[in-house]
Amino acid sequence: MELKRIVGYEAAKLVKDGDIVGLGTGSTTHYFIKKLGERVKKDEIEVMGIPTSYQSFFLAKESGIPVTTLNEHDIDIAVDGADEVDPDLNLIKGGGAAHTMEKIVDGSAVRFVVIVDSSKIVDQLGSMPVPVEVIPDAMRVVQRNIEIIGGAPALRMAERKDGPVITDNGNFVLDVAFEEIGNPWDLEVELNSIPGVVENGLFTGLADEVLVGKDGKVETLKRI
Amino acid sequence: MELKRIVGYEAAKLVKDGDIVGLGTGSTTHYFIKKLGERVKKDEIEVMGIPTSYQSFFLAKESGIPVTTLNEHDIDIAVDGADEVDPDLNLIKGGGAAHTMEKIVDGSAVRFVVIVDSSKIVDQLGSMPVPVEVIPDAMRVVQRNIEIIGGAPALRMAERKDGPVITDNGNFVLDVAFEEIGNPWDLEVELNSIPGVVENGLFTGLADEVLVGKDGKVETLKRI
Repeated sequence: MELKRIVGYEAAKLVKDGDIVGLGTGSTTHYFIKKLGERVKKDEIEVMGIPTSYQSFFLAKESGIPVTTLNEHDIDIAVDGADEVDPDLNLIKGGGAAHTMEKIVDGSAVRFVVIVDSSKIVDQLGSMPVPVEVIPDAMRVVQRNIEIIGGAPALRMAERKDGPVITDNGNFVLDVAFEEIGNPWDLEVELNSIPGVVENGLFTGLADEVLVGKDGKVETLKRI
Repeated sequence: MELKRIVGYEAAKLVKDGDIVGLGTGSTTHYFIKKLGERVKKDEIEVMGIPTSYQSFFLAKESGIPVTTLNEHDIDIAVDGADEVDPDLNLIKGGGAAHTMEKIVDGSAVRFVVIVDSSKIVDQLGSMPVPVEVIPDAMRVVQRNIEIIGGAPALRMAERKDGPVITDNGNFVLDVAFEEIGNPWDLEVELNSIPGVVENGLFTGLADEVLVGKDGKVETLKRI
């Protein structure tokens, strides 16, 4: 928790007065949003946030950050967590089932900053399954097509409701295990080419920099 | 589990050849659907099921029960679980967040049979909060209106996604605690009168009979 707090706070310093800020989802982004709210309340900066989920929307409001939408504004900087980060700053996201709106928001930002603790840094993506958001009526055919490209899909089940997890967009999540992800760029495109797939959790070529919390300090990885 | 299995199996005996069957959601209904599937596979009966959730849809398919919809057929018998049952056979449902479709399906059945283990039998409804399904954009105003009528609403949070539980219909669930539910009939109507409330978990005057699993046997409660 401490490392998540440190990188979250550090990222909040990157936001400038007047910025439109993409607000990621998850436990690390939580600290970013809280700190950003503090800066706004202290009148250090005036910003507007664009949330990536109901969770970040509610947290933004609670923290005193005015919110807006992508239909009204472009994003100067987006800050978001990740489940895995490889040496090329490619990511796997979607553990929180918010990756569709996250990719829309993070991917449209002029500057996309990822914040993670060092446990998320991997040599190669794919220790965790790739979350794939799927239109419910397409589930069976999507599963079949995913198996054809070598993935092992498992429908993510909910815990405080019966049946599957439903995303903020009303869809299912398939957690798709692959033996190896040789080329994350190709796989990202391949998964999204399946009709019924809304979006998958591979974020290739999107992150501009990654703030990593490690040994009580923050290290910055930049795209080469 | 044993008691749930016993009542579930007992209820499967009530289904007749040619019936259109409402398929409830949850851990007790699970056994009903499994047993019904066995009867279908043994060619004892031909039926079609109308599921109340993604969960019961998938389970029906897996169990060999053909499914259809309320837009195509009327329901002869619906079998569903409950979280609380009072002496008038009024219910609280919605622990599994499926109560909207359940009320539509159960309420349209010629015969609605509830299956529970004896732990669900109460003298008065309201030990558990009443689940209320709410349109996300209406949440704040619904919360305010619920407080005015004496309820303490809490947004149900998810566990395998970030943020709130999303229902199969794409909505939120407020679990609303009341100090006492004097008149469940009035409260059911009152809650549903709030704009933004899709449906609440109070099922008054709907159940025709309740099968209760107790001490290894099944007892039947009928509406007087």
